[in-house]
Amino acid sequence: MTVKPSYKLTPLVAKLPATVPFVGPETQERIAGKPFQARIGANENVFGPSPLALKAMQEEAAGIWKYADPESHDLRVALAAHHCVAPENIVVGEGIDGLFGYAVRMFAGPGVNVVTTLGSYPTFNFHVNGYGSTLQFVPFKKDHEDPVVLVEKARETNAAMLYFSNPNNPMGTWWPAKTIAKLIDDVPDETVLVLDEAYIEAAPEGTAPPLDVSKPNVLRFRTFSKAYGMAGARVGYAIGHKDLIVNFDKIRNHFGMNRVAQIAALHALRDQDYLVDVVGRIVRARERIYKIAAANGLSTVPSATNFVAVDCGKDAAFAKSVLEGLVERSVFVRMPGSDPQNRCIRVSVGTDENLDLFERELAIVLSELR
Amino acid sequence: MTVKPSYKLTPLVAKLPATVPFVGPETQERIAGKPFQARIGANENVFGPSPLALKAMQEEAAGIWKYADPESHDLRVALAAHHCVAPENIVVGEGIDGLFGYAVRMFAGPGVNVVTTLGSYPTFNFHVNGYGSTLQFVPFKKDHEDPVVLVEKARETNAAMLYFSNPNNPMGTWWPAKTIAKLIDDVPDETVLVLDEAYIEAAPEGTAPPLDVSKPNVLRFRTFSKAYGMAGARVGYAIGHKDLIVNFDKIRNHFGMNRVAQIAALHALRDQDYLVDVVGRIVRARERIYKIAAANGLSTVPSATNFVAVDCGKDAAFAKSVLEGLVERSVFVRMPGSDPQNRCIRVSVGTDENLDLFERELAIVLSELR
Repeated sequence: MTVKPSYKLTPLVAKLPATVPFVGPETQERIAGKPFQARIGANENVFGPSPLALKAMQEEAAGIWKYADPESHDLRVALAAHHCVAPENIVVGEGIDGLFGYAVRMFAGPGVNVVTTLGSYPTFNFHVNGYGSTLQFVPFKKDHEDPVVLVEKARETNAAMLYFSNPNNPMGTWWPAKTIAKLIDDVPDETVLVLDEAYIEAAPEGTAPPLDVSKPNVLRFRTFSKAYGMAGARVGYAIGHKDLIVNFDKIRNHFGMNRVAQIAALHALRDQDYLVDVVGRIVRARERIYKIAAANGLSTVPSATNFVAVDCGKDAAFAKSVLEGLVERSVFVRMPGSDPQNRCIRVSVGTDENLDLFERELAIVLSELR
Repeated sequence: MTVKPSYKLTPLVAKLPATVPFVGPETQERIAGKPFQARIGANENVFGPSPLALKAMQEEAAGIWKYADPESHDLRVALAAHHCVAPENIVVGEGIDGLFGYAVRMFAGPGVNVVTTLGSYPTFNFHVNGYGSTLQFVPFKKDHEDPVVLVEKARETNAAMLYFSNPNNPMGTWWPAKTIAKLIDDVPDETVLVLDEAYIEAAPEGTAPPLDVSKPNVLRFRTFSKAYGMAGARVGYAIGHKDLIVNFDKIRNHFGMNRVAQIAALHALRDQDYLVDVVGRIVRARERIYKIAAANGLSTVPSATNFVAVDCGKDAAFAKSVLEGLVERSVFVRMPGSDPQNRCIRVSVGTDENLDLFERELAIVLSELR
């Protein structure tokens, strides 16, 4: 019996699709009836967290009966010291995804424009749609986000927000600090720049401009999910002017942080030696992906992240076939959604074993397709 | 230099205060410069999680580099089996607080009424205010939420949502299943009943009516934060008609769950023997709080939760003095906000040591005040 409900969803929620920004690898595994042998599709950091963070997680597990500190005080103080800003310039949240939801909620709504790059991070777009704003897309320019055209588009559409990722996902491309500094200068005062630096720790020195929290309309997003190897912990943070940051307190889920994750992030932050080591391993794995691609006659997009866009050399349909072949052979990878970026598959860095498998299976898949 | 920002917050966010629903005990500790000796103020479960859940947390910590399954598939399947419903009837989220945020977002907005009891759970109200709806308050009736008047108020105000907690926080009172079944029957079809059963596992048999997911406009909220002893993990869930539940997928933070918490909850659920044991300890601690109060000439409100409202026998100012005396003496407790419930302090169950300290300090505080 179908029940016709009488309650009234908001007009906005009523018309939203029940979409999922990404299908998880677990869902694919359930459908396939077997686990992936290499999980190198979600830009997770297979090298994992600092041993200090791991130890903290194990030691603090018994304290899980306590709620986390709703102010994330100790973590914010440590992050403030690390970045040479004040704790009031930092908000900690449930991953960058959670913080994007809050940030979008502050500014978005029907009739409000938000500018981003077509094919850039879909979860940001999910929130923009979810709060009823209109996305204004600018295409990639040679696989890079295009700061000049994005600013023009923001000005032209009187946009409330401009999303920019540096380095970019899904292409791995980046701009030097000078370009980003100019973007920060050029973004209209009326527009909040959402600068997603999730992958910044894996980028070359000189990719991030200095943090300037006197700029009223810039939010810079960082995370423990990528180089720090703690994607499943859900700890992200935003840095900005205190008058902008304080708005998060109006709407955020104050008791939303996992207590053990909060403490583990503090320990991960303290272990910068480990971070340097992991970034070295990311760089080496990145280079190995370049080589594997080249050995198979494929080019790659130089990356400043923990993944590489491998150009399959033909159209989207061909890249999709390569992806599907790999997935069938238990290698989890993903691919960009926009044209012509969808000529590529996106391969996250893996362990030596993961990349051995990728190397072997890629050659087989390509030979079958050619 | 004060910078006048040019960006435009939504009118709603612009006028919201930067309030916090509760100040955390960590903040109080920082201000006092010393830790609490008994943390019995936030209705946490000091007896902690199942050893199976604890073991899972420690073993799964190394896998924190992976995102959690965005569908919480395994946990939802296990919860569905546990409650004899389908996985489609369940949404898992970042604690009940997080799920309240999503549920409110589905229905709330300017001009939309939401009915609740004055002095009941403030975080629900935080979300209702945060999405611009108007709260319509009904007073407690002899320290109980009043289902008859709440339904009348919902009808009268054409309310989109009606919040009801059984057992109630902060008073610990409850209604038998029969009363709740009648509430479910009587709630207007146009109103979504938000039935908060966070404390249900600590309540007597016969407090929860059977789960009926054919009812289109009822959401029942459960959590691993209370009897399961995992408040810091942030795992809650809602049960309801699948056509209502599916709306969460439109707006929720799909990758918002902590992976280790998700797995630990599954193990906690499997250990029902431990749950039974903990509930026994909760009941005994509750009875001890009754006795301590009585020995000091104070009455108590009978409770079906892991806390007890201790009636300090005078007005709110006196109860506040008792509370402040205890807090000064390193015993963390809280108190209700509404009149005349604010004649009470609210004491969560503690270990024997916690309650020894409470017993000793309460006598001292009262003798100083009398």
